[in-house]
Amino acid sequence: MDKGRLNRVISHMREEGLSQIIVTATASVYYLTGYYVDPHERMLALYVDDGGRTILFGNEIFGLTSSPELPLVTHADSQDPVADLAKALRPGKLGIDKFWYSKFLIGLMAHRPDITPVQGSAPVDLSRKLKDEAERQAMRRSSAINDQVVSAAISAVREGVRENELASLVNKEFLARGADGEGVQMVCFGPNGADPHHSGDGTVLKPGDSIIFDIFTPISHYWCDMTRTVFYKSVSDKQRQVFELVRRANEAAEAMVRPGVLLSQLDKTARDIITEGGYGPFFTHRLGHGCGLECHEPPDVSSASDTPLEPGMVFSIEPGIYLPGEFGVRLEDLVLVTEDGCEVLNKYPKELQIIE
Amino acid sequence: MDKGRLNRVISHMREEGLSQIIVTATASVYYLTGYYVDPHERMLALYVDDGGRTILFGNEIFGLTSSPELPLVTHADSQDPVADLAKALRPGKLGIDKFWYSKFLIGLMAHRPDITPVQGSAPVDLSRKLKDEAERQAMRRSSAINDQVVSAAISAVREGVRENELASLVNKEFLARGADGEGVQMVCFGPNGADPHHSGDGTVLKPGDSIIFDIFTPISHYWCDMTRTVFYKSVSDKQRQVFELVRRANEAAEAMVRPGVLLSQLDKTARDIITEGGYGPFFTHRLGHGCGLECHEPPDVSSASDTPLEPGMVFSIEPGIYLPGEFGVRLEDLVLVTEDGCEVLNKYPKELQIIE
Repeated sequence: MDKGRLNRVISHMREEGLSQIIVTATASVYYLTGYYVDPHERMLALYVDDGGRTILFGNEIFGLTSSPELPLVTHADSQDPVADLAKALRPGKLGIDKFWYSKFLIGLMAHRPDITPVQGSAPVDLSRKLKDEAERQAMRRSSAINDQVVSAAISAVREGVRENELASLVNKEFLARGADGEGVQMVCFGPNGADPHHSGDGTVLKPGDSIIFDIFTPISHYWCDMTRTVFYKSVSDKQRQVFELVRRANEAAEAMVRPGVLLSQLDKTARDIITEGGYGPFFTHRLGHGCGLECHEPPDVSSASDTPLEPGMVFSIEPGIYLPGEFGVRLEDLVLVTEDGCEVLNKYPKELQIIE
Repeated sequence: MDKGRLNRVISHMREEGLSQIIVTATASVYYLTGYYVDPHERMLALYVDDGGRTILFGNEIFGLTSSPELPLVTHADSQDPVADLAKALRPGKLGIDKFWYSKFLIGLMAHRPDITPVQGSAPVDLSRKLKDEAERQAMRRSSAINDQVVSAAISAVREGVRENELASLVNKEFLARGADGEGVQMVCFGPNGADPHHSGDGTVLKPGDSIIFDIFTPISHYWCDMTRTVFYKSVSDKQRQVFELVRRANEAAEAMVRPGVLLSQLDKTARDIITEGGYGPFFTHRLGHGCGLECHEPPDVSSASDTPLEPGMVFSIEPGIYLPGEFGVRLEDLVLVTEDGCEVLNKYPKELQIIE
């Protein structure tokens, strides 16, 4: 157990009026315990109460070990995974980690009708949201690698290449630089770029295509996440106009980043530029998302996010314009809020590039 | 909407005493609607009642379209994702898909205290568990590709190779044969193989290592999943003994597969062989798992699974022995239960192989 982090979590529990919580996200359990376990469909849960009592519950297949500092209770695949956890709980309110599977929560409620489940991720999320110095270094390192990888990927653009070949190359380049593993990489040609969630498939590159590289991976558990859009062989006036609008939106939002500014103001700044340029309805998602031990984590960077920036926050700034049937453009950096401003973690240039 | 599948689901709802359910798993929504959406942290939910009423709720970013057959209700990132869903529900029992995030369920319960959430995956799972002919063909095709890919990966074993290089090659070979994308591939050398969840990292191959290839991917949304264990340069008496025990366990369980046999009997048959061989405590997981639109799906193939085999089931048979600090051995095939027996979908040989 990291006692410093545990104490910060407990202090947030008090602020939130929670006397007990269940922490289940892989990243949150790692953050507090140092155990990195992906439970897949199985059960992993760290119980924390406001007196500092912690118990880890997990499937025996995870290979965890018990210690005086952190007692472990295991179960087998053939056993009810929440039976022991149910016994450890006090009656009343219980904070539940946001991504815990409903099957476990419904099972727990059947054991313990005296428990009232409430949203319970905030204490750990609030602590994880402000990166300490070691975490900042880890994020800088991951993003520096991302700069190298996007450069390699853009250099590999050539006639006849398929989206999934470039996605595969991105994974290979990440692995060669120490990534934790392979993942889905978003490489989108032309009209595919108009779907903000498209990932690389067998589509072949054509002259005049926009190419979106949205690439991301964990490196020593800390994620990078960057998007660049380039053009192949030629760029139309409309593509150029859309690109420059997205670039202005990205740069204007980044220029505003400093402690005290509201997250929603960043979204508004970028969105206003795109709206004034006539493409408001085609910027269909929020401006960005927090990033750290998970690729998507708090803070939310959207119009609904009325919390002020604080030093140690790391999040993406990624305006985009998506024109169905035509093309898409997105530009994304990770930024770190510093004591007096902003450190943009991605250095790869954002000028319009036409690949010959 | 696939009306035939919907009617099967509704008939299972009646058997289960459920008059309304929320279907949220990507694969289940695809199975019924043909929409393949990975919602990440966002909200996707298909409401189904026993009168055949269906409504799809999803974030506007998913790019879904409404139809008279399947009305769509969208929300933006900045809106409460469950507000509209809450309005559509009848009071009383509501079946909830097992992997739905607790944050949504807790939000829904706050809107509708007159709702009692219960486990609600069974109706769709029971329908998905028995593959129809089109699905059987899809599974055969995926596993035939897996046979080719494991062969390519075993051929690529050479001095100095790293686990993640082989894992990367596996992804590349899958992609070249039409896989939907890249994923984590489990390639484990020597002592790493003693962790049943280890995935390929920078470990370099050494003579005398066992090499576990547990490789899997979706192809046109239907998964393959196979494990082979081979040895590099030499095999010790203990490795040979453990390998043959695992092979006998795998083959004995497969030989029993036919309609009417209990899933738990398969687990027992394999486990008894390993226990009699003296390694019972080192076979630390269930025998297998269902496989189809998800890599892990019902049926569960474990000692707790007292349901009889039925034609159309597809699942893995994957006994393993894990010796911490030493090595691991696992052999896995997908099998399809036929009207009168078993079709083993993986044809790659299981004889002990020493790679020179």
